[in-house]
Amino acid sequence: MSRVYNFSAGPAVLPEEVLKEAAAEMLDYKGTGMSVMEMSHRSKPFQAIIDEAEADLRDLLNIPANYKVLFLQGGASLEFIKIPMNFMRKKKAGYIITGQWAKKASKEAKFVGEMVTLASSEDKTFSYIPDCSDLPITDDMDYVYICENNTIYGTKFHTLPNTKGIPLIADQSSCFLSEPVDVTKYGMIYAGVQKNVGPAGVVIAIIREDLIPTEEESKKIPTMLNYKTQVDNNSLFNTPNCYGIYICGKVFKWLKANGGLEGIQKKNQEKAAILYDFLDNSKLFVGTVEKASRSLMNVPFIVNPAVVTDPEKKAALEADFVAQATKAGLVNLKGHRSVGGMRASIYNAMPKAGVEALVAFMKKFEEENL
Amino acid sequence: MSRVYNFSAGPAVLPEEVLKEAAAEMLDYKGTGMSVMEMSHRSKPFQAIIDEAEADLRDLLNIPANYKVLFLQGGASLEFIKIPMNFMRKKKAGYIITGQWAKKASKEAKFVGEMVTLASSEDKTFSYIPDCSDLPITDDMDYVYICENNTIYGTKFHTLPNTKGIPLIADQSSCFLSEPVDVTKYGMIYAGVQKNVGPAGVVIAIIREDLIPTEEESKKIPTMLNYKTQVDNNSLFNTPNCYGIYICGKVFKWLKANGGLEGIQKKNQEKAAILYDFLDNSKLFVGTVEKASRSLMNVPFIVNPAVVTDPEKKAALEADFVAQATKAGLVNLKGHRSVGGMRASIYNAMPKAGVEALVAFMKKFEEENL
Repeated sequence: MSRVYNFSAGPAVLPEEVLKEAAAEMLDYKGTGMSVMEMSHRSKPFQAIIDEAEADLRDLLNIPANYKVLFLQGGASLEFIKIPMNFMRKKKAGYIITGQWAKKASKEAKFVGEMVTLASSEDKTFSYIPDCSDLPITDDMDYVYICENNTIYGTKFHTLPNTKGIPLIADQSSCFLSEPVDVTKYGMIYAGVQKNVGPAGVVIAIIREDLIPTEEESKKIPTMLNYKTQVDNNSLFNTPNCYGIYICGKVFKWLKANGGLEGIQKKNQEKAAILYDFLDNSKLFVGTVEKASRSLMNVPFIVNPAVVTDPEKKAALEADFVAQATKAGLVNLKGHRSVGGMRASIYNAMPKAGVEALVAFMKKFEEENL
Repeated sequence: MSRVYNFSAGPAVLPEEVLKEAAAEMLDYKGTGMSVMEMSHRSKPFQAIIDEAEADLRDLLNIPANYKVLFLQGGASLEFIKIPMNFMRKKKAGYIITGQWAKKASKEAKFVGEMVTLASSEDKTFSYIPDCSDLPITDDMDYVYICENNTIYGTKFHTLPNTKGIPLIADQSSCFLSEPVDVTKYGMIYAGVQKNVGPAGVVIAIIREDLIPTEEESKKIPTMLNYKTQVDNNSLFNTPNCYGIYICGKVFKWLKANGGLEGIQKKNQEKAAILYDFLDNSKLFVGTVEKASRSLMNVPFIVNPAVVTDPEKKAALEADFVAQATKAGLVNLKGHRSVGGMRASIYNAMPKAGVEALVAFMKKFEEENL
């Protein structure tokens, strides 16, 4: 068995320790005589798993008591319609469009009410986060929506928008648990876990309790699309993705054992610095994102078109880079089709050694091809 | 490590061979250097996993080409609202109420249109399947809905309702892949996989293609609630529950290696006969379901109140039975609160030896307590 360095944008690398534990417990979880996959979601061992996962997550993020934590299913994309269904009371919301995911979310809002585009960076292929210090937010808006880290484009909100008192709702899928967060600044945080936290199939939502639909409001919201349903049942209204939650719980413990969110932030900053420093000094490669908007998680880069001016030659070099890197055990480096080139996703579980190996490989490739 | 006999109603026992394979592949799936949990859903190895899963499922159920197969998320409960949203064109549908799950589904239909109760067995705690040979079905109904096997009550439709030409939609969660099925008799079959097929978090839907919303109809259905979205994207519109699909695929292969659905039906009939024969001849125990409606999957039984007439003594004996069985490695036998007593779920992966061990234990308990 040999493990690769997996730079996939998601589903993505998980801590090896977590996978080893899961493998060892596959046929018999802690003397229960069964796998977690075979376990009733109403059983005591599973209740302990989900309770511990929630407690550890609250601990990591320092989640205040007036925020509910939900373990959901359906993919983050399902939240795109649930958010307006649950929160659009005045039938109007503002969206900041920093990429495809925010755009997709904004499209679903129109099924429920009026969607106002507050800002957009589409003019430059979403390569920056727009200035959000003074947006055209009005009192009749129910919420302001952002996608905080943009996986495809490699951008991140380093300063949250000034929402002028309107609740902020953030899709944190690709930066969730990568650094400490002040939860009180949000009305709702949610994330598909398949980037930083676990296997695809679990969405974690953290919702300020005063935003949750009332009994009366709930009459108009289908049961499984209403956050109140799972709030009232501690995420166990129906059978959840038990095995996914179990893996997330292990990742929370791994984070706690490795310095919590401050510890992981430091490691993530170090890893990103290694890669960005190289890019900033490279002749062959160049990053695609404005420096002030750079993500610590997703790093897109291309062969510099100012150096390799023939587009065909540039494309061939990029394809060759990805192919050779794969052979060297550095996999999933192909960029998203809307940006092109390469992208290295360096989530929490990517070791520093993986980033160092990538940079060493890039240096060698540059020497050989410049 | 010692495995128990797990009679859980779901999530439920899985084939030991499948779990062993999953454990062995946890850190390196077939030389990819990564776990299936870490694998991009857009990667070739995952595409092969989902393609093979669909091909094997089509093979097992002999699914005609004009039926689409979807691997979904959200739990079967999410389908309760998607079904009327997608199929209620004339805004009217008929529901046959044979338990809590059909009832919950019928409640969601009312968010979209008119829900007509065609038949119900609620008068006798859902202990039978009503006669469905001549139901008050009218031409203005879009579909007839059933829950084909009722996990809580232990009943099963052994004859499908006469729907008078109206499409039949069946929740097969707790009988899916337990026997051969004539797919052409259904407009849609769907199932949460956590009973017979895999870990909780995957829903499999098989839909006749002419029922899928058109481009025009789709304008009114939110993206993630529209079956067309996943039909157009072969279940990969957004990241699916990759690991769950991988395990389902392994179970499909296990079924094929064990005689397919005819082979498993024979085994399921044998296992159920062992338990029902004992119950029919027991003095202490009695089944709660009308013989003609008995499920092969879920077998509820109680201490016979005609023999142990004191309700308190009866309840104490039942509690003692469950406690002693647990100590003997026969676990999750407590009945659902709405039926009481005991329930043995004996899904595909429950070996015959498990049912034999249960019956031997019941005999001994009867001898000691009668």
